Amino acid sequence: MTTTQNLPYLSNIWYVAALSTEVDDEALFSRTLLDTSIMIYRRQDGTPVALRDRCPHRFVPLSQGKRDGDSVVCPYHGLSFDCSGKCNHNPHGNQHIPEAAVVQSFPLVERYGFLWIWMGNQPANPDLIPDYGPLVDGHPNGVGYTYMRRECNYELINDNVMDLSHIDHLHGEIITTRGKLSPQVPQLSETADTVSARWEWEQTPPMLIFNQFLPAPEASARHFIGITWSAPANIQLTVGATQNNDSLDLHHCVGQYDLHTCTPETLNSTHYFFGTRRNHLEEDAEFNAMKTKAMHDAFETEDGPVLDAVHQQMGTTDLFSLKPVLLPSDIAAVKVRRKLAEQITLEHQPL
Amino acid sequence: MTTTQNLPYLSNIWYVAALSTEVDDEALFSRTLLDTSIMIYRRQDGTPVALRDRCPHRFVPLSQGKRDGDSVVCPYHGLSFDCSGKCNHNPHGNQHIPEAAVVQSFPLVERYGFLWIWMGNQPANPDLIPDYGPLVDGHPNGVGYTYMRRECNYELINDNVMDLSHIDHLHGEIITTRGKLSPQVPQLSETADTVSARWEWEQTPPMLIFNQFLPAPEASARHFIGITWSAPANIQLTVGATQNNDSLDLHHCVGQYDLHTCTPETLNSTHYFFGTRRNHLEEDAEFNAMKTKAMHDAFETEDGPVLDAVHQQMGTTDLFSLKPVLLPSDIAAVKVRRKLAEQITLEHQPL
Amino acid sequence: MTTTQNLPYLSNIWYVAALSTEVDDEALFSRTLLDTSIMIYRRQDGTPVALRDRCPHRFVPLSQGKRDGDSVVCPYHGLSFDCSGKCNHNPHGNQHIPEAAVVQSFPLVERYGFLWIWMGNQPANPDLIPDYGPLVDGHPNGVGYTYMRRECNYELINDNVMDLSHIDHLHGEIITTRGKLSPQVPQLSETADTVSARWEWEQTPPMLIFNQFLPAPEASARHFIGITWSAPANIQLTVGATQNNDSLDLHHCVGQYDLHTCTPETLNSTHYFFGTRRNHLEEDAEFNAMKTKAMHDAFETEDGPVLDAVHQQMGTTDLFSLKPVLLPSDIAAVKVRRKLAEQITLEHQPL
Repeated sequence: MTTTQNLPYLSNIWYVAALSTEVDDEALFSRTLLDTSIMIYRRQDGTPVALRDRCPHRFVPLSQGKRDGDSVVCPYHGLSFDCSGKCNHNPHGNQHIPEAAVVQSFPLVERYGFLWIWMGNQPANPDLIPDYGPLVDGHPNGVGYTYMRRECNYELINDNVMDLSHIDHLHGEIITTRGKLSPQVPQLSETADTVSARWEWEQTPPMLIFNQFLPAPEASARHFIGITWSAPANIQLTVGATQNNDSLDLHHCVGQYDLHTCTPETLNSTHYFFGTRRNHLEEDAEFNAMKTKAMHDAFETEDGPVLDAVHQQMGTTDLFSLKPVLLPSDIAAVKVRRKLAEQITLEHQPL
Repeated sequence: MTTTQNLPYLSNIWYVAALSTEVDDEALFSRTLLDTSIMIYRRQDGTPVALRDRCPHRFVPLSQGKRDGDSVVCPYHGLSFDCSGKCNHNPHGNQHIPEAAVVQSFPLVERYGFLWIWMGNQPANPDLIPDYGPLVDGHPNGVGYTYMRRECNYELINDNVMDLSHIDHLHGEIITTRGKLSPQVPQLSETADTVSARWEWEQTPPMLIFNQFLPAPEASARHFIGITWSAPANIQLTVGATQNNDSLDLHHCVGQYDLHTCTPETLNSTHYFFGTRRNHLEEDAEFNAMKTKAMHDAFETEDGPVLDAVHQQMGTTDLFSLKPVLLPSDIAAVKVRRKLAEQITLEHQPL
Repeated sequence: MTTTQNLPYLSNIWYVAALSTEVDDEALFSRTLLDTSIMIYRRQDGTPVALRDRCPHRFVPLSQGKRDGDSVVCPYHGLSFDCSGKCNHNPHGNQHIPEAAVVQSFPLVERYGFLWIWMGNQPANPDLIPDYGPLVDGHPNGVGYTYMRRECNYELINDNVMDLSHIDHLHGEIITTRGKLSPQVPQLSETADTVSARWEWEQTPPMLIFNQFLPAPEASARHFIGITWSAPANIQLTVGATQNNDSLDLHHCVGQYDLHTCTPETLNSTHYFFGTRRNHLEEDAEFNAMKTKAMHDAFETEDGPVLDAVHQQMGTTDLFSLKPVLLPSDIAAVKVRRKLAEQITLEHQPL
């Protein structure tokens, strides 16, 4: 059973509901977000809309119905709803449409290759979607997207990405730092809404995802990773390598600009969305597909089973109540947990 | 785990436990009804009996045991029980049979092709089984039965049959009314124990399940449907069509007399039983099998998935607490929900 | 989700965690015991150790990690723990090891072909493991072991073995007593910590597992079974037959010495361990394998389905609250339930 009560979640915030590519022109796409069933579809002009995926009459999922232009017709009794959720046809009796015959509608914005939904009770402001413009700034074959569903709480994925010291332990050869990341204590910075961490190091050979694009593939290179979290579960990650004395940033390195962003399905399962733009071999569609699949497979076969197993151990018990032994490398992940908890508490406080 | 506590259900009422054909001469048939495991079997003279499907000693389902004449022997320690539930053999120690060694027994009546069970604490009166005599009044090839199990609450099936305005929206070509049913507001009538609704209309061509048996298969015909509900979930439905000026009833129309009746397995799953007698081609066994299968398949592939999906949305939450937008076509279904709720409340009130 | 709160269980007692043969030299063996995930592995010298199967840092099951000599390395962030549970390597930052970086460790003793674990909060005393020395006293081909997992509460298995009057009803030809056991009321004896029962009878032919080893395989023989329970779920069973006037004990009969012992996985599922030594054909490995498999199959196909079905009926509801009809043959099983309940109550009382 789903519910409209989103109390455990931050709700006045933008969440990714789907990849743009998941919702094609014909689809009545259905996904549960924050315990709530949502239907997404595109108007005939391509604009995506999001409605509660249940008819206000007898609670049938409208995604089981049919498209009729920009409207959706319920399969059970034929009520039709326009893309704002308002009933625009009732075939029954004298065809009177009750005032209340409205499906809940949610603000939905298509940006950076994702569909962002606002499920809160306060007005939706698209300017609050963080700026991930670099994802879509360049050749279309230079960016890849993927989606995964995991059987774990979404905060475990925040923890995973915020503490990259796990790379050499959990992941395979292609992104190994040759043990150089673990000894690093990342450099932290914070704003009211974000937590950032940055690592810099030198390794030989360079990370195998980059070395073939560097002048001397087997020689030493300087590397960096920078991550920035914003609530509830957006983590922008930039990583790169260089063999000259340039600045350690994406303009001067061989590297990539990624977004990891998660949306709770329930407290026990998570939609994990990923986008990645690289600054090399940008026009090669085949390389793009291969690379996106490799990253997808790494999440699915390396991070995924570990995170699901942790969820089996912890359930939805608060991490801190289990008294974990924390390491200096946890600092960014812990700050994120605390900041998110504060924002949730604040949202649910009476004004 | 099952329980004998049937509080959420109306219990002093007859429920269908099984189709007659489901319990053959040899079977120890087991089914959970109202959260309670029940064993049904036939005595050597064919009379069916119903016992709690658990031994009073160590709670083994007796249906895992063996027949011994009209008795049933528990597979675990060999206690034998007669068809009234009384222990008639204890192989242990001095073979003394404790007073309390009795399996709960339930009144069971075979009538109209169904086995009706009484699970209440008041005396069972077979006269309270509604009269569905027409089902068995005629050639045996003129009546068909089927059984379905659904993953939804039984009241959703009441709603479904009590509001037939869904026919043109949910169902396929063979029972289409060409949009004639939805504009109808059914004529309602009530007694203390029943809710009835009736629709009358004219359509061209006639319903495809009837038109081949009418004088002019492609011409207009007058149609009617009448339904009568009684608690908890019996709905008798009569439907017919005629092309002359006769009365709109089964004696003067090409039509059929059906019974839809449901028994909760749990609050989240339902046994759905169906019987149908037609007044045409009554002796044709092949047609009978084909027609019964077609109706079974319509429930399973058209109503079933929608009702299960609604149950996923609603769970066991009270319909009215979810503030559904109700239409005039809901009137009969809403009356049924209210009357059933009243009867359940009344039953559970202290006298 | 697992928990360290073992309140429903007796915890200051030895439980069998695994058969010795289940944990090979390389394994990181994982099993949930008393709702708690446990990892068992052997040090390089073969000594088995038991640790909580979760890293104290981020709660990953350590059994998903890797061996490093006698240590285990967490797959997520590479923390290493020695076989006492103490962290002995932290690859992060300045490699400082926090005081608290310790995995909970459990006393584990390998004895009689089983690995015994102590999960209580009081000091573990290996002398409290009951003496099952006869299991390992003799030729290695004279003893067999097996493991089963059942979907029922462990006390149902206590009930099963403590009341052997079920043998002729539930089991097949090879251990039939020809109806001789049911009429017996067993002779009971008790100590503070044990409940024992003993049956003696004569049958023709002797039990088929023994008669081929007796002088006159088709003639009458005197038989006995003795069982002794100790908490929580150890039942030692000795059974034998003779055709002369010797004492009815294992030294003078063709017979076997068995241990049935159960450990709750959860309240709804049980690890069932079994060991059996016979005093005939002791060196025959093929016979040993065949006989062990036959006993395993009898539990799995005869007792198992009945016990699981009972659990479906009862859940974790207290047996006595369901007012079972008890027979004289239940006397030993009832005493065991009462004694175990007393011990659990006593353990959880404030001193």
